[in-house]
Amino acid sequence: RKDVKIAMLPGDGIGPEILNEAARVLNALDEKFEMEWADVGGAGYAAHGHPLPEGTLKLAKEADAILFGAVGDFKYDTLERSLRPEQAILGLRKNLKLFANLRPAILYPELAGASTLKPEVVSGLDLLIVRELTGDIYFGQPRGHRSAPDGAFEGAREGFDTMRYAEPEIRRIAHIAFQTAKKRGKRLTSVDKANVLETSQLWREIMIDVSREYPDVKLDHMYVDNAAMQLVRAPKELDVIVTGNMFGDILSDAAAMLTGSIGMLPSASLDEDNKGLYEPSHGSAPDIAGKGIANPLAQILSAAMMLRYSLNMGEQADRIEKAVKKVLADGLRTGDIYEEGTKRVGTKEMGDAVVAAL
Amino acid sequence: RKDVKIAMLPGDGIGPEILNEAARVLNALDEKFEMEWADVGGAGYAAHGHPLPEGTLKLAKEADAILFGAVGDFKYDTLERSLRPEQAILGLRKNLKLFANLRPAILYPELAGASTLKPEVVSGLDLLIVRELTGDIYFGQPRGHRSAPDGAFEGAREGFDTMRYAEPEIRRIAHIAFQTAKKRGKRLTSVDKANVLETSQLWREIMIDVSREYPDVKLDHMYVDNAAMQLVRAPKELDVIVTGNMFGDILSDAAAMLTGSIGMLPSASLDEDNKGLYEPSHGSAPDIAGKGIANPLAQILSAAMMLRYSLNMGEQADRIEKAVKKVLADGLRTGDIYEEGTKRVGTKEMGDAVVAAL
Ligand SMILES: CC(C)[C@H](C(=O)O)[C@@H](O)C(=O)O
Ligand SMILES: CC(C)[C@H](C(=O)O)[C@@H](O)C(=O)O
Repeated sequence: RKDVKIAMLPGDGIGPEILNEAARVLNALDEKFEMEWADVGGAGYAAHGHPLPEGTLKLAKEADAILFGAVGDFKYDTLERSLRPEQAILGLRKNLKLFANLRPAILYPELAGASTLKPEVVSGLDLLIVRELTGDIYFGQPRGHRSAPDGAFEGAREGFDTMRYAEPEIRRIAHIAFQTAKKRGKRLTSVDKANVLETSQLWREIMIDVSREYPDVKLDHMYVDNAAMQLVRAPKELDVIVTGNMFGDILSDAAAMLTGSIGMLPSASLDEDNKGLYEPSHGSAPDIAGKGIANPLAQILSAAMMLRYSLNMGEQADRIEKAVKKVLADGLRTGDIYEEGTKRVGTKEMGDAVVAAL
Repeated sequence: RKDVKIAMLPGDGIGPEILNEAARVLNALDEKFEMEWADVGGAGYAAHGHPLPEGTLKLAKEADAILFGAVGDFKYDTLERSLRPEQAILGLRKNLKLFANLRPAILYPELAGASTLKPEVVSGLDLLIVRELTGDIYFGQPRGHRSAPDGAFEGAREGFDTMRYAEPEIRRIAHIAFQTAKKRGKRLTSVDKANVLETSQLWREIMIDVSREYPDVKLDHMYVDNAAMQLVRAPKELDVIVTGNMFGDILSDAAAMLTGSIGMLPSASLDEDNKGLYEPSHGSAPDIAGKGIANPLAQILSAAMMLRYSLNMGEQADRIEKAVKKVLADGLRTGDIYEEGTKRVGTKEMGDAVVAAL
């Protein structure tokens, strides 16, 4: 059979360093992968004048899966928005129709001390946020700046955006969420702001409708402000959360930070056929780029997620995840998760250790 | 001089019980207040068929200040949205032009144990969120349900809302925030999502523009997802946050929950002339209503905020706040903040203790 083709998009900051380690881990497996590398984000702009160069988008479309590092660097902060590194990730999501974002927030027992929350509140945390990724106010038209057409400030300059969700859009993310919940704790929490927003009212209605097809999953609803509180108060009471693009952006980052070890958290962004883009939940950390100290584990675990969700190689994914657990159990730590009594290592040593543990 | 008139709006759930205690505290001061009580929320609907009855709105407009309990109860959950208790609070904000919401998140040293965060992360926390309250996607038109006019799901049923901010609207909340920051740590963090939203781009531009009038206040910007993370990671690094209605809803609740003692937190919603509505940051807690166990301190501290911001009685406000600190120091606790070694009291006993400590 033909080799599996992976688009390797390192991006900016620590992206290249950590993606390198993930590549080494993939190469250490029994399967053969065809990896093709391309510039994205600030690196795309620097080399080709655009954060998502045409060649990169073409590669991403052709490939069986995309392994993405991170984008963003101080030096691109002054560019106009359409040229800034983040546009690459928004463009990939939209063009590849990656509507389902899975963001696990898992606290590894060895790293419980890294959390700012009390151990009893977070130890054993294993939460999954299912975020809709191609709709909502992120892409809704119309949007822009104009003279206010009506209201108390008619005639004044205003900025505006449109939050929108169509029924089939809500329905398909609902199915992903219910199917995921079914395989886990059989509980699903849908987060919205139905007491204020029309979009949320439709969201809630469709969630309830789809729930009829999953009688073994218990659905409940939470307003987004309350969800933000419950994440802080008792995160272990939550299991799978499904929410829109905007609320998911905020809640998934809050949830990741509860663990104190965001350097460990991978994420997947999937299309209808389970083709996907895989990336760490953390950013490009330009302040520590090039120093060889970044934690490559979220990137390595993103590769494992890729094998499981898009490439049908669950066993190989298991091997990687077990290897990561082993290096943690062996006491190896990069700086971001270092604690007294453990061994501090760099990016490459951490990658070496995972390869050795495979 | 004519008596100060206060609109007392108890609302639902524990609202009546806690507002009673605040009334007793106000009556124990040297000033004389004319307090007029009216139904609001579910109670408004039950008595007059609307959550914000005409008479209540009229009273709120006439009064010098509004002391508000809380609204919402399970029994109103099935009402259509326009009749639900929350509409009262949205209606009061809009009708009275209460655009500036001040939400302190303060951790009283005696209550550090109540937080789910580690003591070193939150002890001494004293954060203020300035939330714009009458604009944004909460009130933006157009909104509703329709057949999608364009896009990938053209023709499908969709829900939509409009996020909008006009320049003068941003400008006036910016001034409130800068003035507040100037009196505190001289640092202001503006939270937006300018990497995605047009509304946020204008927000950021105006914040920067207004900052020129406050050269002694250091302004910085944070994306809302990052702000949610920083609240969990290192809340004490933040001082005053200013943000829009939607992001403020989420972040202020998250910030309140960091303290673990939301039963202690008051809030103010002010108009251009510092007339305001004052309410606890917590909700109506219908599950414990009528049991005499609710914590009245957030409501009592809301009365203190009212004296300070709207009624120009800073000394009286100080007296109340000192009295509250004294009862805490004396070890009195309602159930929500109870810890071993302290004395558990009910709503009325707590009110008694504050009156005695005045
Ligand atoms: C970079 C930004 C546009 C993006 C988002 O808001 O979706 C990021 O925060 C994320 O969550 O992946
Ligand atoms: C009740 C609801 C409409 C309200 C809001 O979202 O503003 C509440 O959550 C608040 O923060 O005061």
